[in-house]
Amino acid sequence: MADSQAVRAALRAQRIETPSWAFGNSGTRFKVFAQQGVPRDAYEKVDDAATVHQYTGVAPSVALHIPWDKVDDYAALAAHARDRGITLGAINPNVFQEDDYRLGSVCNPDPAVRRRALDHLLECVDIMAATGSRDLSLWFADGTNYPGQDSITARQDRLSEALHAVYERLTGDQRMLLEYKLFEPAFYATDLPDWGTSFAHCVDLGPRARVLVDTGHHAPGTNIEFIVAFLLHRSRLGGFHFNSRFYADDDLMAGAADPFQLFRIMTEIVLGRGLDPAAGVAFMLDQCHNIEPKIPALIRSVLNVQEATAKALLVDAEALRKSQVDGDVLGANEVVMDAYNTDVRPLLAQVRQDMGIDPDPIGAYRRSGHQDRIAAQRVGGNAAGWGA
Amino acid sequence: MADSQAVRAALRAQRIETPSWAFGNSGTRFKVFAQQGVPRDAYEKVDDAATVHQYTGVAPSVALHIPWDKVDDYAALAAHARDRGITLGAINPNVFQEDDYRLGSVCNPDPAVRRRALDHLLECVDIMAATGSRDLSLWFADGTNYPGQDSITARQDRLSEALHAVYERLTGDQRMLLEYKLFEPAFYATDLPDWGTSFAHCVDLGPRARVLVDTGHHAPGTNIEFIVAFLLHRSRLGGFHFNSRFYADDDLMAGAADPFQLFRIMTEIVLGRGLDPAAGVAFMLDQCHNIEPKIPALIRSVLNVQEATAKALLVDAEALRKSQVDGDVLGANEVVMDAYNTDVRPLLAQVRQDMGIDPDPIGAYRRSGHQDRIAAQRVGGNAAGWGA
Amino acid sequence: MADSQAVRAALRAQRIETPSWAFGNSGTRFKVFAQQGVPRDAYEKVDDAATVHQYTGVAPSVALHIPWDKVDDYAALAAHARDRGITLGAINPNVFQEDDYRLGSVCNPDPAVRRRALDHLLECVDIMAATGSRDLSLWFADGTNYPGQDSITARQDRLSEALHAVYERLTGDQRMLLEYKLFEPAFYATDLPDWGTSFAHCVDLGPRARVLVDTGHHAPGTNIEFIVAFLLHRSRLGGFHFNSRFYADDDLMAGAADPFQLFRIMTEIVLGRGLDPAAGVAFMLDQCHNIEPKIPALIRSVLNVQEATAKALLVDAEALRKSQVDGDVLGANEVVMDAYNTDVRPLLAQVRQDMGIDPDPIGAYRRSGHQDRIAAQRVGGNAAGWGA
Amino acid sequence: MADSQAVRAALRAQRIETPSWAFGNSGTRFKVFAQQGVPRDAYEKVDDAATVHQYTGVAPSVALHIPWDKVDDYAALAAHARDRGITLGAINPNVFQEDDYRLGSVCNPDPAVRRRALDHLLECVDIMAATGSRDLSLWFADGTNYPGQDSITARQDRLSEALHAVYERLTGDQRMLLEYKLFEPAFYATDLPDWGTSFAHCVDLGPRARVLVDTGHHAPGTNIEFIVAFLLHRSRLGGFHFNSRFYADDDLMAGAADPFQLFRIMTEIVLGRGLDPAAGVAFMLDQCHNIEPKIPALIRSVLNVQEATAKALLVDAEALRKSQVDGDVLGANEVVMDAYNTDVRPLLAQVRQDMGIDPDPIGAYRRSGHQDRIAAQRVGGNAAGWGA
Repeated sequence: MADSQAVRAALRAQRIETPSWAFGNSGTRFKVFAQQGVPRDAYEKVDDAATVHQYTGVAPSVALHIPWDKVDDYAALAAHARDRGITLGAINPNVFQEDDYRLGSVCNPDPAVRRRALDHLLECVDIMAATGSRDLSLWFADGTNYPGQDSITARQDRLSEALHAVYERLTGDQRMLLEYKLFEPAFYATDLPDWGTSFAHCVDLGPRARVLVDTGHHAPGTNIEFIVAFLLHRSRLGGFHFNSRFYADDDLMAGAADPFQLFRIMTEIVLGRGLDPAAGVAFMLDQCHNIEPKIPALIRSVLNVQEATAKALLVDAEALRKSQVDGDVLGANEVVMDAYNTDVRPLLAQVRQDMGIDPDPIGAYRRSGHQDRIAAQRVGGNAAGWGA
Repeated sequence: MADSQAVRAALRAQRIETPSWAFGNSGTRFKVFAQQGVPRDAYEKVDDAATVHQYTGVAPSVALHIPWDKVDDYAALAAHARDRGITLGAINPNVFQEDDYRLGSVCNPDPAVRRRALDHLLECVDIMAATGSRDLSLWFADGTNYPGQDSITARQDRLSEALHAVYERLTGDQRMLLEYKLFEPAFYATDLPDWGTSFAHCVDLGPRARVLVDTGHHAPGTNIEFIVAFLLHRSRLGGFHFNSRFYADDDLMAGAADPFQLFRIMTEIVLGRGLDPAAGVAFMLDQCHNIEPKIPALIRSVLNVQEATAKALLVDAEALRKSQVDGDVLGANEVVMDAYNTDVRPLLAQVRQDMGIDPDPIGAYRRSGHQDRIAAQRVGGNAAGWGA
Repeated sequence: MADSQAVRAALRAQRIETPSWAFGNSGTRFKVFAQQGVPRDAYEKVDDAATVHQYTGVAPSVALHIPWDKVDDYAALAAHARDRGITLGAINPNVFQEDDYRLGSVCNPDPAVRRRALDHLLECVDIMAATGSRDLSLWFADGTNYPGQDSITARQDRLSEALHAVYERLTGDQRMLLEYKLFEPAFYATDLPDWGTSFAHCVDLGPRARVLVDTGHHAPGTNIEFIVAFLLHRSRLGGFHFNSRFYADDDLMAGAADPFQLFRIMTEIVLGRGLDPAAGVAFMLDQCHNIEPKIPALIRSVLNVQEATAKALLVDAEALRKSQVDGDVLGANEVVMDAYNTDVRPLLAQVRQDMGIDPDPIGAYRRSGHQDRIAAQRVGGNAAGWGA
Repeated sequence: MADSQAVRAALRAQRIETPSWAFGNSGTRFKVFAQQGVPRDAYEKVDDAATVHQYTGVAPSVALHIPWDKVDDYAALAAHARDRGITLGAINPNVFQEDDYRLGSVCNPDPAVRRRALDHLLECVDIMAATGSRDLSLWFADGTNYPGQDSITARQDRLSEALHAVYERLTGDQRMLLEYKLFEPAFYATDLPDWGTSFAHCVDLGPRARVLVDTGHHAPGTNIEFIVAFLLHRSRLGGFHFNSRFYADDDLMAGAADPFQLFRIMTEIVLGRGLDPAAGVAFMLDQCHNIEPKIPALIRSVLNVQEATAKALLVDAEALRKSQVDGDVLGANEVVMDAYNTDVRPLLAQVRQDMGIDPDPIGAYRRSGHQDRIAAQRVGGNAAGWGA
């Protein structure tokens, strides 16, 4: 995309959704380190998401996690979000935190547990109507820890049954995004372990069902941009849960561990016209800030996705295609690397000025004193975390 | 399968195909260590495959690799095989060893190269008619080494076009088995990197197309038995290329690196009725014997698959199902482990005696003096290898 | 070891230590599923460890975790253990669960935090005197999540300083076992990530310092038995934390995920005379039972280590050496596999009868009604977990 | 390093050694694709290395591989190199390409084979005297493919014996660089699989022995910069074999697969003063150009190392240290990322102009017509490859 006007327009139009749960405390199985100023309820999480949007200009919605963000009146929560300049985004059901789910949720051998899990999923579809959300993001912790523990195929059949029941409840522009994950919390066989499994179920279900790619959920060595390009090419890419990793599902800030990978992913998006809203790709963050402060970490993550996108937009698609057709291995690689090696921070500073926000979001946030303010204000109550 | 008569019958009925190329010299990029007594042509490879069958009783066919096994008269080769007590099995085209294929075969950016590769594939379908083979095993070395080198999606389209052209040529009971591989020789993006990609193409093509699982072609941590169970459940498992690995595509003897994994895979096969010929699962070896003598290594590999199958047949499916339904994690695992911990060698010795062969195949081969004989006879000529 | 008398004697003499924390509730960052009958304090954990010993005969000690097992009077706890037929084993300090440790313990950039961590380690040496423990098991959660977060080498210097301070406090037969772990909870750079780092520090410290190998703490593909053989050969193998894994540090029951690997490890131990108490190798379990009942899971784990040991003892070392010297690849492998493929359960049943315990530990425990009894008795109070 | 004069001086002083074998044909076990213009002997390889230096200015030496680069008169070859403006660098013995080495070289169970391998190593020390080389780079393909094949510890003892014999032969400023590799060509247990093993042997040997880090030789997830920082801190880092990888030992162009990792490595080098010649760190490339033209691929690789170094030199060490001491996770990471995100190509263009070479090495090489010239000239003879 040689035209810098078009590049800037594309960058202004980008939309990255923040996850409400990333504003709360999180950690590993070893320890959750509590931080100051953490929100106590869904309203304060919405406030924090609005803060991220205020400084970045490209994060105008926040995903909810049910029941962690359960409120009596979702319309009131949506109105609160609108007041703050953002909207409510994807609904993320939770079918992994009840003692009943020890052996799985919709794949559990016990039909009563499956019914309970399905009821929660259907309740979340109802919530989508109240929040005006388009996307139901489904992640299942289901799986087994030991060979023989349960039947792989029986669990597939149970999964399929539940997915169909939920799918049939969708109306209007509602969609189902089906996430996969190699392992954790299941350590032998996960019921949706890879994109192939999600894809097969989505094809079974119909066009409203699409694969959700969490960038931290793959085996070592997996070429994620291949998956992204493949799914986008077949109109089955529903969206992303961005984060980054060195080892397993580390949930580090997007772009922190492998900025080149994030760029390669965004390059496939740009080349496949996935930035076009008509492509139906939702760009969402899903990460943990175990030791760093949450709001600036989310601002940083948004900026990292934005920088990767800017670089991807600078790839000279025409020169690339020519080198590819010519079989010029080094030349084609050079076209891509030229874009990657460009410092896009001046360009993004310009884009922000065009949008009327501070060209230096991190500096501006730091100077604002906001972090101290919320630390002082948010005292008492229960700090939000993965359990609430 | 509590009934030991049925277990023994199932073991007598098992069929494991050997690969002609495993009888030739092979190695790594660092060195091919030449061995004595290696076959010089397709006829001698058939002889060696017949030897493996003679000592095991369950390896009655041999897969061919074209052009490494090219002969003027395939009917004559098939007759030679019948004389030796075996048949010709799957046909494996080679579209990776011409200088033209530097940037790929059917995915190459150059249409002339794609045409050449397709012609070879179609020629192999013709060979299948001559050899009476049911299965065309397709493995493509296609992929790229550097980001940007070629378009992921353009290559998918080219792949799809070639697969359709080959598929349309199939007649009678002919099938296409589509293999995937994470990496090597491509080191950035392989065009068929995982089962999901193979599966999607097979679904596009139709019921004659099925996924071929090579047990060495996965990312670290991949649960292969999940893939096997999933594909078998959907009638898309075409067969196996058995071998084993500690690291990458090491191509060690099947069962040598992780006998428990091989057992788990065969357990899914048994539980999913995949041993039934009607299931259409081809059990084939595909491995390299870089430092060990080839014929006894293949005998050992056949025995390892056989032992894993025997253990899988001993899993008490009824007790397993009950423990699974009850959510008895330890009990269900114990059912599986009881079978795995059983020493099935006495049972298999009995099966062999029922079949009229020596109960100790390795010992019998060693005592036969055959290895010395072929070392003495096969002098001069060009020892078979991956290049011929 | 051809002499079956010697094999049985070796099996009767084996000692496997259970970890007190494995009797409490555990889980993943997503959820800890509470179980019934879980101990409420260190005394009840000792009771559970004694139960495991009662049924297996080879688990006569229990490792403690401080402060999770903190008591006012360690001599009284030791006496309680003796009453139950076991002893107190290794002391495991905890320097990862205070908010102060967000950026590390002995490697923390803040000297006050380092001092606090060191004080706890020294306190644990004092506890060793009271409990009569020989081994201090050191595992540090220290590391960083982001490039640049802290200086790798400054952290090494701080680590070294703390280790020296602790080492100098050791007296009598006390030892320091230094554990390493690839990742988690640190997701960028762990301060003791591999055996090489532990080894280098142990060599710096002196002969009382030895490497502790946790079988779940390695990168994919790591050959653990190589490390074990190497360290044992150099008298630097302090012991094991046994558990098993398919993916990361899954902490599944020892031998559940890869029984062949456990056998290979125990084979190196047997060949290197590591079962001899003079070798100074401590055999300990360290695992989590997230979804299965804890006591039978620990019994199963002890049995799995025992079965692997029995098979390792059956390796015909003389035949193996001969095949190795002759360069007989298949023959040498066959010697090892012959032992592995043997069903050692009848042998172990005999060993148990020699020891006066039930030949079927799992069945005997199940029939005893003990699980129901503790579920009924242990009501109220705080169930033990990783936090207490 | 805030001082841009110092940064430019450091960049002008950088030295990156090219490997003679990378100019010859190479490939995978599946196929070696021949290229045009490939050198036919050591003299032409030296010419190609000189060409890389001519265009980059920072590649003034070439490593030799014996016997691939065997000549009658090494002094004459050294003189030829000097004529072309470069020198002969590290000597790399080859003890993996004789049929005798099927079961290993210095670790082989057969003492005659071990003797042969040792003789070759000692011959290479003699060659070092003739070429004026400082470093002997030792990589051993030794290892086993199957459990039991050989004794891990016996092989360690044999390795140690050979290393001592070679070490004792070193004189003057000669050094031994000891490389490790996780796997390939050995697929079960490699005799020098990780840095810990190399380090332990180097400590045994003495100060002339140092660890050689090949960036492609690690298990997935290994933090290479940790190893680099650790070894440099202890004066045991002998040097690098740079290349890059997505999967195994892919040997792609340095910096092509993970430029951020290369930057992190170079940052540890800069922070640990490893660029100072007194630190004794040799910066060498070791890679394969299977599908791309070799000379420009090596120019690109040199540039990639140079760019990573330039970025590392831009890290504000003082600001970094302050953020680290303050425990400012995001701030410290930002210091590092600021340097990484800088486009250093203009700075390097300036450095090149200071050195009197073309600011655009790739473009200059392309425009020179050199590639066509060597393609036309180098016809007939045997193109160099891994076998010669």
